[in-house]
Amino acid sequence: MPDGLLDAFRAYETALRGNDTEALNALFAPGPDTVRGDGKTLLTGHAAIAGFRSARTKIPTRQVAVLHVRVLGADTALCLASTREPSNGATGLQTQVWRRGPAGWQVIAAHVTLPQAPGPALDTSVWRVAGDPLLSGAPEGPLHGSRVAVKDLFAVAGHPLGAGNPTWLAGRKPEPESAPVVSALLAAGADLAGIARTDEFAYSLAGTNAHYGSPPNPAAPGAVSGGSTSGPASAVSLRQAEIGLGTDTAGSIRVPASYQGLVGLRTTHGAVDRTGLLPLAPSFDTVGWLTRDIATSARVAEVLLPAATRVPLAATRTLRLSTVDGHARPGIAEAVEATAARLAGEGALPPIEHGDLAPETLERWFHAFRTVQAREAWLAHGDWISAHPGSLGADVAGRFETASRVTETDAHQASEVVAEAREALRELLAGAVLVLPASAGPAPRRDAGSEEVEAERAGTLRMTCLAGLAGAPAVSLPLLGGPSGLCLVTSPGTDLGLLTFAGKVLETSR
Amino acid sequence: MPDGLLDAFRAYETALRGNDTEALNALFAPGPDTVRGDGKTLLTGHAAIAGFRSARTKIPTRQVAVLHVRVLGADTALCLASTREPSNGATGLQTQVWRRGPAGWQVIAAHVTLPQAPGPALDTSVWRVAGDPLLSGAPEGPLHGSRVAVKDLFAVAGHPLGAGNPTWLAGRKPEPESAPVVSALLAAGADLAGIARTDEFAYSLAGTNAHYGSPPNPAAPGAVSGGSTSGPASAVSLRQAEIGLGTDTAGSIRVPASYQGLVGLRTTHGAVDRTGLLPLAPSFDTVGWLTRDIATSARVAEVLLPAATRVPLAATRTLRLSTVDGHARPGIAEAVEATAARLAGEGALPPIEHGDLAPETLERWFHAFRTVQAREAWLAHGDWISAHPGSLGADVAGRFETASRVTETDAHQASEVVAEAREALRELLAGAVLVLPASAGPAPRRDAGSEEVEAERAGTLRMTCLAGLAGAPAVSLPLLGGPSGLCLVTSPGTDLGLLTFAGKVLETSR
Repeated sequence: MPDGLLDAFRAYETALRGNDTEALNALFAPGPDTVRGDGKTLLTGHAAIAGFRSARTKIPTRQVAVLHVRVLGADTALCLASTREPSNGATGLQTQVWRRGPAGWQVIAAHVTLPQAPGPALDTSVWRVAGDPLLSGAPEGPLHGSRVAVKDLFAVAGHPLGAGNPTWLAGRKPEPESAPVVSALLAAGADLAGIARTDEFAYSLAGTNAHYGSPPNPAAPGAVSGGSTSGPASAVSLRQAEIGLGTDTAGSIRVPASYQGLVGLRTTHGAVDRTGLLPLAPSFDTVGWLTRDIATSARVAEVLLPAATRVPLAATRTLRLSTVDGHARPGIAEAVEATAARLAGEGALPPIEHGDLAPETLERWFHAFRTVQAREAWLAHGDWISAHPGSLGADVAGRFETASRVTETDAHQASEVVAEAREALRELLAGAVLVLPASAGPAPRRDAGSEEVEAERAGTLRMTCLAGLAGAPAVSLPLLGGPSGLCLVTSPGTDLGLLTFAGKVLETSR
Repeated sequence: MPDGLLDAFRAYETALRGNDTEALNALFAPGPDTVRGDGKTLLTGHAAIAGFRSARTKIPTRQVAVLHVRVLGADTALCLASTREPSNGATGLQTQVWRRGPAGWQVIAAHVTLPQAPGPALDTSVWRVAGDPLLSGAPEGPLHGSRVAVKDLFAVAGHPLGAGNPTWLAGRKPEPESAPVVSALLAAGADLAGIARTDEFAYSLAGTNAHYGSPPNPAAPGAVSGGSTSGPASAVSLRQAEIGLGTDTAGSIRVPASYQGLVGLRTTHGAVDRTGLLPLAPSFDTVGWLTRDIATSARVAEVLLPAATRVPLAATRTLRLSTVDGHARPGIAEAVEATAARLAGEGALPPIEHGDLAPETLERWFHAFRTVQAREAWLAHGDWISAHPGSLGADVAGRFETASRVTETDAHQASEVVAEAREALRELLAGAVLVLPASAGPAPRRDAGSEEVEAERAGTLRMTCLAGLAGAPAVSLPLLGGPSGLCLVTSPGTDLGLLTFAGKVLETSR
């Protein structure tokens, strides 16, 4: 056994259990060649590994069961340790290549297989209730073989409606019947897999529920899921459902679709029955769904949308708004521009026209949107929230607190701006397809600071509010990598046409 | 890059995908120091690794996504490769330390993290429906903090009752209210985690449901779970619930408890309300529960059982019946005898007395039990089964087929034998605690032949039928290793006393 190696090995284990990131970082060799992998991610370079450590919230409690040391050279050795999680007896394995340098023994490569304990019955960050199935669909129909994850904002017969908040849930009785939109999916042959999580009262875009945790984002491990249709989106990404049924008021379908590389449709305002849906802001609330492919999205659309929306898109121009793109994170506007240009070049999009939208106009519209949304959200939930102080997570509580201060006069004035914006946007959308980022950027990391999250949110809302203001359908397509979504918006009432069009865009991009 | 290393690496990947064990063995360094680990096992020495390879049935299909090579010395190098499973995109990691010797480059250490695909929302072999929770218990109470997995044989408000059969389930409406026993647990503060699987109509002891698969047995991987309270038992073993609520007609609590190393109580016949429970054979059907420890079992008992059963056990003898033990698998009778002797020696059991039970008497009693059970099972379900041919798995269908041929006359005669046996057994149990195996042996492997399964079943039923005939309470305790349960049976109406007594037995055995 080389001098000092065992001490270094032990020091590492001690630091690990104590989450002493400084000591851990010192025991890994500096520089770009040090690697650490665990099956999910392979991190290259000391900086990336240190970043991972600082973000880690779950501290290992493993114990070393068997240590196998092999000397590979005068200053190089291999330590292979089988580990054991004392709480449940699960076993893992850790391989480290150590090298002795001026700073003593340091790890130059590590491979960790974490102890795999039997998990809980359900990932409760994704699901509140799940079944095999929870409700059976009709034995035949266009959606036969598909499973639906329904956002916990729709009535499901026999279950209380949870709205992402445990205090609210505790006060609810089982719903006597399912929302018509749920029943329609069942009648079309889809099974209801379960009731999936939502951000509280759907008043968030992040997917971080203070009570139930953040659903995983399989497309970007370590990043938020996006919300508020967070659980259904993750369920679809995890292949635990084919259809994530949700709502989109200010981006709650488009944002998780963008963050998770899914296809997400927000429908024309009022085109899909909202009976049995808990409102957030009725002036903008729409039903929508997330899927892994556009064909499934279109099959759902055929079931839920009026045939009248099957108008062929007569778009003669691809509308681009640089004022809107300006709110995107670095590189996103360029990616949208390049993708749109490529698609137009290949004939999948009509010729591009850059529209004029004054920055101050966008700000006025956006603030009007937020004001009306806030006023309506407070009218919908203010009484309950006032009666249950301390029940909401901090971010959503803060948003409702702001909403509580919106006066009727503010709201009235804002409504007039919304009407003006709606008219202007519908005019812009006539004969056009608006192409913009579906979110300001890819999903922020779960440990991102509140400033970064707020900046992402502020940028995203300036994009998503446009379809909200216009009452227009919008689809997010996984076309930017990252993942990050490309959003297409068309005139209200053209939903089925938009999906057909989007299908061709995706096909061209293949 | 050292000469030939990449070729060796590639040759290894090719051999792996082709399951060319000869090539794989040649690419691993010979001798006792070569190691290979994957988190579950750490194999030391070339021979052990070659043995593992020859036994492997699932051939990896991974592709190398990123290869990171680091030279560690003139003839030593590290290859760290992140891998990707093409069918589902899951990622893994493989670390190899290669050394160049006379035979060229060979692996001296390997660490594999297999690609982990995201699993389904639920393990549907264990659960039909699960929630966080499915139904909330009272905010306070003696069972607060406990989660119940309820066998799919009890009514649960808002859900149809499934009975382990999909055709039956499809024809059921949601139950308007929960069975009183379920409501009592909720009122005592327990949450209902979900509805767990049962063998079809509870008419089996194996835990192998032809429609939904066999729940895992974490105490004996690769072995059956035991049934018919299979799902609740596995849920408790998996720590997805603390209480598995089920039924025991002919061993359906005691057998899974025995196979999974749990504490399982079958209560006195008629002591716990059976309203809302689908019957199998009402003359013997009882409510029971499985837990990981006796304290939890006793807490449930305090909620569900009448206080009158809190009689202190006045047992003056430990009754042993060698005729019964004779049906156990090799070594089991000896283990029961030795354990009983040890416990008696330590004062945890009263002095042992070997009772006389003629083999032909046991056979007569057993056959009477089976006949009455079969007749009642057919009366309960025969009409439905006749109307739905082909709906049952082969084993349960065969059992009902036999049951259909039991005549009323057979049943009447058998009832008289049952009455005789009941009286005789109650006399034997007066002032005694009967100690016997809870099952003929440990859980058979999932791939055991039908002969072995039938032999295990036949032996087990000759043990479990005694409490059934006597209408007596019985508890299975994880005392034989294997795991295999030691069963204590006492006089009817002494359930709480039996649990107190069993608690002392377990304490002594610690």
